[in-house]
Amino acid sequence: MKLTMRPVCAGLLVVTALAAGTAARAQEGRITYDHLVRAGEDPGNWLMYSGQYHSQRFSRLEEIDRTNVGSLELAWVRQLPTLGQVQTSPLVVDGVMYLTTPDNEVYALDAATGHVFWTYTHDLADTLTLCCGKQSRGVAMLADRLYMTTLDARLVAIDAATGAKLWDRQIADNLTGYSMTAAPLAVKDMVVTGTGGGEYGIRGWVDAYDAATGERRWRAYTIPGPGEPGNETWAGDSWQTGGASTWMTGSYDPDLNLIYWGVGNPGPDWNGATREGDNLYSDSVIAIDADTGSIEWHFQFTPHDVHDWDACQVPVLVDRVVGGRVQKLMLFANRNGFFYALDRETGRFLLAREYATQTWAQGIDDSGRPIRVPDMEPTPEGRFVYPEVNGASNWWSPSFSPDTGLFYTMAYDGGATFYSADVDYEPGKLFVGGGYSRDEPIDTYVSAVRAIDPLTGRRAWEHRVQPKSMSGVMSTAGGLVFAGTVTGNFIALDAETGEDLWHKGLGGEIIAAPITYLAGGRQQVTIAAGHAIFTFALED
Amino acid sequence: MKLTMRPVCAGLLVVTALAAGTAARAQEGRITYDHLVRAGEDPGNWLMYSGQYHSQRFSRLEEIDRTNVGSLELAWVRQLPTLGQVQTSPLVVDGVMYLTTPDNEVYALDAATGHVFWTYTHDLADTLTLCCGKQSRGVAMLADRLYMTTLDARLVAIDAATGAKLWDRQIADNLTGYSMTAAPLAVKDMVVTGTGGGEYGIRGWVDAYDAATGERRWRAYTIPGPGEPGNETWAGDSWQTGGASTWMTGSYDPDLNLIYWGVGNPGPDWNGATREGDNLYSDSVIAIDADTGSIEWHFQFTPHDVHDWDACQVPVLVDRVVGGRVQKLMLFANRNGFFYALDRETGRFLLAREYATQTWAQGIDDSGRPIRVPDMEPTPEGRFVYPEVNGASNWWSPSFSPDTGLFYTMAYDGGATFYSADVDYEPGKLFVGGGYSRDEPIDTYVSAVRAIDPLTGRRAWEHRVQPKSMSGVMSTAGGLVFAGTVTGNFIALDAETGEDLWHKGLGGEIIAAPITYLAGGRQQVTIAAGHAIFTFALED
Repeated sequence: MKLTMRPVCAGLLVVTALAAGTAARAQEGRITYDHLVRAGEDPGNWLMYSGQYHSQRFSRLEEIDRTNVGSLELAWVRQLPTLGQVQTSPLVVDGVMYLTTPDNEVYALDAATGHVFWTYTHDLADTLTLCCGKQSRGVAMLADRLYMTTLDARLVAIDAATGAKLWDRQIADNLTGYSMTAAPLAVKDMVVTGTGGGEYGIRGWVDAYDAATGERRWRAYTIPGPGEPGNETWAGDSWQTGGASTWMTGSYDPDLNLIYWGVGNPGPDWNGATREGDNLYSDSVIAIDADTGSIEWHFQFTPHDVHDWDACQVPVLVDRVVGGRVQKLMLFANRNGFFYALDRETGRFLLAREYATQTWAQGIDDSGRPIRVPDMEPTPEGRFVYPEVNGASNWWSPSFSPDTGLFYTMAYDGGATFYSADVDYEPGKLFVGGGYSRDEPIDTYVSAVRAIDPLTGRRAWEHRVQPKSMSGVMSTAGGLVFAGTVTGNFIALDAETGEDLWHKGLGGEIIAAPITYLAGGRQQVTIAAGHAIFTFALED
Repeated sequence: MKLTMRPVCAGLLVVTALAAGTAARAQEGRITYDHLVRAGEDPGNWLMYSGQYHSQRFSRLEEIDRTNVGSLELAWVRQLPTLGQVQTSPLVVDGVMYLTTPDNEVYALDAATGHVFWTYTHDLADTLTLCCGKQSRGVAMLADRLYMTTLDARLVAIDAATGAKLWDRQIADNLTGYSMTAAPLAVKDMVVTGTGGGEYGIRGWVDAYDAATGERRWRAYTIPGPGEPGNETWAGDSWQTGGASTWMTGSYDPDLNLIYWGVGNPGPDWNGATREGDNLYSDSVIAIDADTGSIEWHFQFTPHDVHDWDACQVPVLVDRVVGGRVQKLMLFANRNGFFYALDRETGRFLLAREYATQTWAQGIDDSGRPIRVPDMEPTPEGRFVYPEVNGASNWWSPSFSPDTGLFYTMAYDGGATFYSADVDYEPGKLFVGGGYSRDEPIDTYVSAVRAIDPLTGRRAWEHRVQPKSMSGVMSTAGGLVFAGTVTGNFIALDAETGEDLWHKGLGGEIIAAPITYLAGGRQQVTIAAGHAIFTFALED
């Protein structure tokens, strides 16, 4: 393979020792929108959360391949001063790695050695409203700036060379349930971000901010307001506290100028009595005009969800020749147990197929709407349903390899007992109408990396891991799929067969997604495990 | 090399899945005193803190050697749920690794994979009196039991197979300054331990406890009481609060039946005005009759210390042919900057030589007593002295290789400004008469692994590392010396020349000592770095 290396950004690396320690001026980034659009031509860098706008989390690098991955060796480790769950997917720009910790620290590292150039620590508010602990999944980069969203609902711009804060905007009220954990997405001259808070009765949105100033350009509410189409899918005033959060990073099609974003569950969870109707656009994917913020189309996977099956998965954009013509697809392994292919120009439903055990739907009809099994709603006494609350998959990054034509995701077969309960909305308090229990010992849980043919939805292979695991996956032109387990095993599978070609125990749970890039002239693979960042390469 | 493997302890490994997780019954230990005496015949295990009673931290294993160490690869990692400084030196017994965390947790791991068999968590007292943070350096093993001393001054016996607590004795008052961080030493049917607390006005001791019951067998006070020889070396009542702690693991000579233990600084630190005299046995090594607890001899390195130069180093016992006859030596790289060789039968001084920069002594006289440079005591205005407060070396394990005949230690050339101040004793409060400051940026600090010829005290080679580092070192029959840096670099040096043959960045500071052993039929090397345990081996 011939690598097309981006000719700009040769950069300058100057390390200056200061009295109080070592500060470093890392290479200047100068990442333009055009670089982001053409990120696929620059596989030596990893320029955004999912690698490229199409979110295939696929790399053209092939130095590490099926034949030699068994010799993969530890290059370096960087341990992080946190006891939280490290979910970060780093960026790598011209040899500098940027990542976040669960406490909203940003690290700039030498990607070749793990040496720390600088750290930035966000001064978090004392009061946080978090459903699920502290997490931060990474930064976006544009020009010479990094962007991080924070647990206290701020958007922070940081100088990529020095780690200095440029600006810091409060973009929502952290006291009433808003919080942010995802890496933003840089599009044109904007930074696009969603929000968490679906368990706090927020009204969700996707926002775009001026990358230079932090001024808001547009907001796309994920719950239509009064008078807007879809508002009628929420009984009474329930739209005001309906959740529909947007806590993962979306995708973008520059040709269509559409931003795709997954939308979370309607609130309150587990009890739909106060919000009769389909509850648009909860549990949907929405297509947003990048210039105006208008929602051009939506597709709802789970109307009137009562099982907490957010559609906060990463939409994977793939162009495939179907019936002789190029079809612009969106592939989506939904938390509800079904894999979907949509036409991403129009949102038209193409196919759905169960990719993990589910018991709540008899099937999906021709319009893409589930045909429900009766009596699967939570009750005060509890009802056992597959998939369980955490879903058949979740935010764990999927991947698509254009070489194999397969879609890869970490999947889970397991059920839970879902309970309903009454709840009243109170600002800043959890707004959940029930709960759940898992009835089996955790060690009996089985997950699997599953390869799916997107044209049929059929499973090509699976690689089972135990117990239940939640890592992202990445595929490469080396014919490999990388993934991780909750027991800390980092694994490389044959992308064609799922065969385990290499694995290494990293001693801490892997809940993050792998990336790959060039550093020091060689291909490296990096994964967060436990409280550390591990990087592997072939022997020098 | 033919390995002499201990034929007993084939053991039984049964892993039982329980509803709440995985519990494991690790292999039964049955480590007898005879096994400990003959630990050198069993290099596949690492049976006590310093490997063997002579504390050479040397291994006869030679699968990993000068020629192949460059191919050393990560075998596994086990991350620990702590933000503390992991100083543990694990034991390995028949494939099971036992280690402690800074919070007095004990882990039993599969040494071949890092899989956790069980953990034991000590219920620490709410009030701890710690000069220097939480630390725990490991366990001792005897029969089927592990022994841990705790930060709240308890001695705990744990079933090595299950992690169940067998007994737990309060052996000193944690509210008045006693605390324990060292691995105990199992001798005969006893568990021997010292104590920390030298900065809290304790009166130090070395204790022996019945290994089966926890009853105390004897106590050897490190400050002689009224009427005992040496009590006159403390002015007035100063002996009552004179410190002389014993916070590191000692050594043992089974033939001489003598336990050797390093003794800490006299208190209060930095201000000797209230404790005129030599302050025996502070800053000494003492030889204790293992059966009676009587102190058979002592050697004081730094009489009337005012610089905090504890002699809490590991005494290294070496038999050497000197002048045609076998001499039983003790080698000691003292915190005060001098390397000493003593006759360990009698305590007779043989030689001393500066092994790191020091400015406080013109030399050591023929009796082993320092010839002091005038005006080096701390003053209220401050006096700059080498070595600095942390010493030219410290508790960081040294090593001796019988193959090279060299003694290895991490050493540091650096000074500090020492200040004196008035202080009154108050039970449970810090009892220090001054302080210190380091005047240079930390990045300019340089340490070195130094190889010393014990017959002359001369330096054979050094390998410099930066900044100041504090790891232990281990040597092997493969012609290697392993050490680590505060920047997280784990290094393997040529034991003859100090050449760097291999290194790997582990991303967290290395303040622990390496061990080596066999697991899964191959030689492995393990080191604690940052908040994780890393194990390396040659490729399968």
